[in-house]
Amino acid sequence: MADILLTPGPTPLPPEVREALGRPIIHHRTSQYRAVFKRVLQGMQTVMQTSSSVVCLTSSGTGAMEAAVVNLLSPGDEAIVILGGKFAERWQKLCNVYGITVRAIPVAYGAAVDPKQLAVALKDYPNAKVVFTTLCETSTGIVNDLRSIAALTRKSQAVLVVDAISGLLADDCPTDQWGIDVLVAGSQKGLMLPPGLAFLSLNARAWELVERSKTPRFYTDLRLYRKSLADDDTPFTSAVSTVIALDEALKRILSMGVTQTIEHCGQLAAATRAGMKALGLELFSQRPSNGVTAVQVPAGVDGKQLTKIMYERSRVMVAGGQGEMAGKIFRFAHMGYISSEDIFAGMKALEAALASLGHPIKPDAGSRALQSMLQPSGA
Amino acid sequence: MADILLTPGPTPLPPEVREALGRPIIHHRTSQYRAVFKRVLQGMQTVMQTSSSVVCLTSSGTGAMEAAVVNLLSPGDEAIVILGGKFAERWQKLCNVYGITVRAIPVAYGAAVDPKQLAVALKDYPNAKVVFTTLCETSTGIVNDLRSIAALTRKSQAVLVVDAISGLLADDCPTDQWGIDVLVAGSQKGLMLPPGLAFLSLNARAWELVERSKTPRFYTDLRLYRKSLADDDTPFTSAVSTVIALDEALKRILSMGVTQTIEHCGQLAAATRAGMKALGLELFSQRPSNGVTAVQVPAGVDGKQLTKIMYERSRVMVAGGQGEMAGKIFRFAHMGYISSEDIFAGMKALEAALASLGHPIKPDAGSRALQSMLQPSGA
Repeated sequence: MADILLTPGPTPLPPEVREALGRPIIHHRTSQYRAVFKRVLQGMQTVMQTSSSVVCLTSSGTGAMEAAVVNLLSPGDEAIVILGGKFAERWQKLCNVYGITVRAIPVAYGAAVDPKQLAVALKDYPNAKVVFTTLCETSTGIVNDLRSIAALTRKSQAVLVVDAISGLLADDCPTDQWGIDVLVAGSQKGLMLPPGLAFLSLNARAWELVERSKTPRFYTDLRLYRKSLADDDTPFTSAVSTVIALDEALKRILSMGVTQTIEHCGQLAAATRAGMKALGLELFSQRPSNGVTAVQVPAGVDGKQLTKIMYERSRVMVAGGQGEMAGKIFRFAHMGYISSEDIFAGMKALEAALASLGHPIKPDAGSRALQSMLQPSGA
Repeated sequence: MADILLTPGPTPLPPEVREALGRPIIHHRTSQYRAVFKRVLQGMQTVMQTSSSVVCLTSSGTGAMEAAVVNLLSPGDEAIVILGGKFAERWQKLCNVYGITVRAIPVAYGAAVDPKQLAVALKDYPNAKVVFTTLCETSTGIVNDLRSIAALTRKSQAVLVVDAISGLLADDCPTDQWGIDVLVAGSQKGLMLPPGLAFLSLNARAWELVERSKTPRFYTDLRLYRKSLADDDTPFTSAVSTVIALDEALKRILSMGVTQTIEHCGQLAAATRAGMKALGLELFSQRPSNGVTAVQVPAGVDGKQLTKIMYERSRVMVAGGQGEMAGKIFRFAHMGYISSEDIFAGMKALEAALASLGHPIKPDAGSRALQSMLQPSGA
C-alpha cells in the first residue's frame, strides 16, 4: 500500500512529473534545454502572478530565503520581520546571522499578523529597508493578509519580501497587483515536484537593493543569475531533471489555471475544516490557509500517538507540530497534487485513530461533513 | 535517436536510477527515509574513501565549494589556491568574495601543478590555513598529483580541501590514506545522478576550523548539518528523489567496487587517448584525468563547428573549451555510466566531423585504435 502524503511538502507527484523525472538526462548548455528553461521561467511568472524576472536556484526553499537576505541587505541594515511561526522565525535567524538589525513584530502562534502592528512598526522604524513576512506559515497553518501588508509597505521606503514557499498556488497572492517586491517559492509544495529547486521573483525596486548590497555571496549571488537569464541559463548547474519535470507540472497547473488551482485548494481546505469541526475538533489557525489546516489535538489525546497511528494503520502521513507545538497540533495539507480522495482517506484515518485512542467522536461525522462539502465541486 | 552524452556532467543515468527518480515521493522525516539517508551517507564514505562524516547539501557542486570556504575560513584568513583552470579559479573567486587573502599558485591551462610550487608556497605562507585544489580540473582534463600535494600539506598547519566534483570515482583519491581533510563531490558526474546534490567529507582537523570560522552562513552552515547527522537527517529539506536514486546508483557502484570503477574509467580514458593519437590529434592535458580527455582542435579546424557537427549529425554531445579555451579544445568524458559503446560512437562521430570539415585523417584510425584497447578488458 502506497503512502498517502498529506504533509505540507513534499507533496505527491503527478504521473507525468514522475515520468519526466525518469527520462534520460539532457545537457543543460543546449538549445533544447534552454527552450525548456525559458518556458519554465515564463510559467513561473504566471504562477507567481508577476511580470518580474524569476530566478531559479538549485537549493531548498531556505536557500532562496537566504538569497533574499544577502542580496537585499548589508550588515547594519535594518529590517522588519513579522513573526508567528517557525518559518517566519527563519527570516529572523537569517537576518541575525548576516548582521541585520531585526525589528521583530511578535505574533502568537496560530494568529496572523494584525496589519496595524505593521503600520506601527513602519512608523517606528522608517529606516527599515525590507519587511520580511510569510504568505502561509506552514507551521501554524495561517495565511497572512498580504494585501493589507503590501499596501502598508508600499507607503514606506521598504521592500516587501514574502516567503510563499508553501502558500504559492494555494493562497491567492497577486504579486504585482498587490505590490509585493520579492516572492520566494519552492518546488515541493504547490508545484507538485520533489524538493531541490527554489525560486525568487524580484521587481525593479528589489533589483536596486541587490545592486547595492555589500553582503558577500557567490552561490546565491542574484546578479550572476540575472546575467545568465539573458541566455536562458543559470550560472551554476541546474537540477536539470527537476526543471524538466517542472515543465510538465506547469502544463498541468496552467491548463487548469492559476485561479482555478487556488480555488480547488480553497474547496479542499473548507471541506477539511468542516470535517474537523464535525468531529468536534478545534482549528489552531485563526486565519486558516488554503494550503494546510492545523488542528488542535483534543485534551486527553497524545498528539504524537495520533499521527503515528494514522500512519501505521492507514498509511496516511500528516504532519505533527514543530518546536513548542509538537504534540499539540497536527496538520493536514491540501496543496499541489493532493486530491479530495486523499483528504477523504486522511479524514477516515483520523476518525479511526481518535476512536482507537478512546476519544469520543460521532462515527464518520468528519468524513461525512467533508464529503458533503466536496460534492458541489464535482470532486 | 537519443543523445549520447560524453559531457563531463551531467552524465547518463542508469535505468535503475531513472526508475528511482520516478517513484512516488516519500516524506523525509520518516524512519523509511532516514534508513535510506543513513545508508547513502555510508556508501558515500566508501566512495570518498574516508571514515570521516559526509555531509549532503541540496545544491550544485559550487554550493559545496562555497560551504568549504565559509565554514573553514574567516575574513582576513590566508589560503593557498592552486590554479590551472576554470574550476580552480572558482576557489579563488570564492575566497575573494569572502575576504580571504589568496596566495595563488599559477599553473598553465593544460598543466598539473608541480608539487614543488606548493612546497615553496607553504614555506612562503606559513600562516595559510587552507590549501584549495582540484582533483580533476574538468576544464582542462588534467588530474593533479594529490598524493604529493597531500603529503606536502600534511607537513604544514594547513587543511587540504579538494574539489573532486568531476574526479570522484574516475581518478583514484584515497582521502584518508593520503591525508586529505575535506573532499567535495557532486551528484552529476561519477555518481550517475542528475545535478542537485553535493557532498563534503570533513575530518577532525577540518571540523576544528568549522567551529572557529566567523564567516556568516546559514544554508551552508555545516554545524547544522553535523547536528542533524545524529538523526540521519538534514537541517533543510533534502532533494528526496535524488537521494533515493543515489541509493540505487551506489548499489551499482559498490557492487562493481570503487577500485574497479576507477580502473574501468582508466581503461576508457586510455582507449580514448589512443584513439585521439591515432587520428593525429594532440592531447591538451599534460597529466590526463581518467574522467575527461581534453584534445586540441587541430589547426585549420573550427572547434565550435566540430562539436556542433558531432551533435547535429551523430547526436553525440562532447564539451567544447570554456573561457579562453573556447574553440581551441574539445573534451570527451568517460566517467559515471558512460560506456565503451558511447565512447566508440563518440569516436566515430569525431572521425566523421573531422572528415566533413576537410581535416585529413586516416579513415577509422581512431575508432580502430580505441576498439583494440578496449578488447582486452572484455568490453
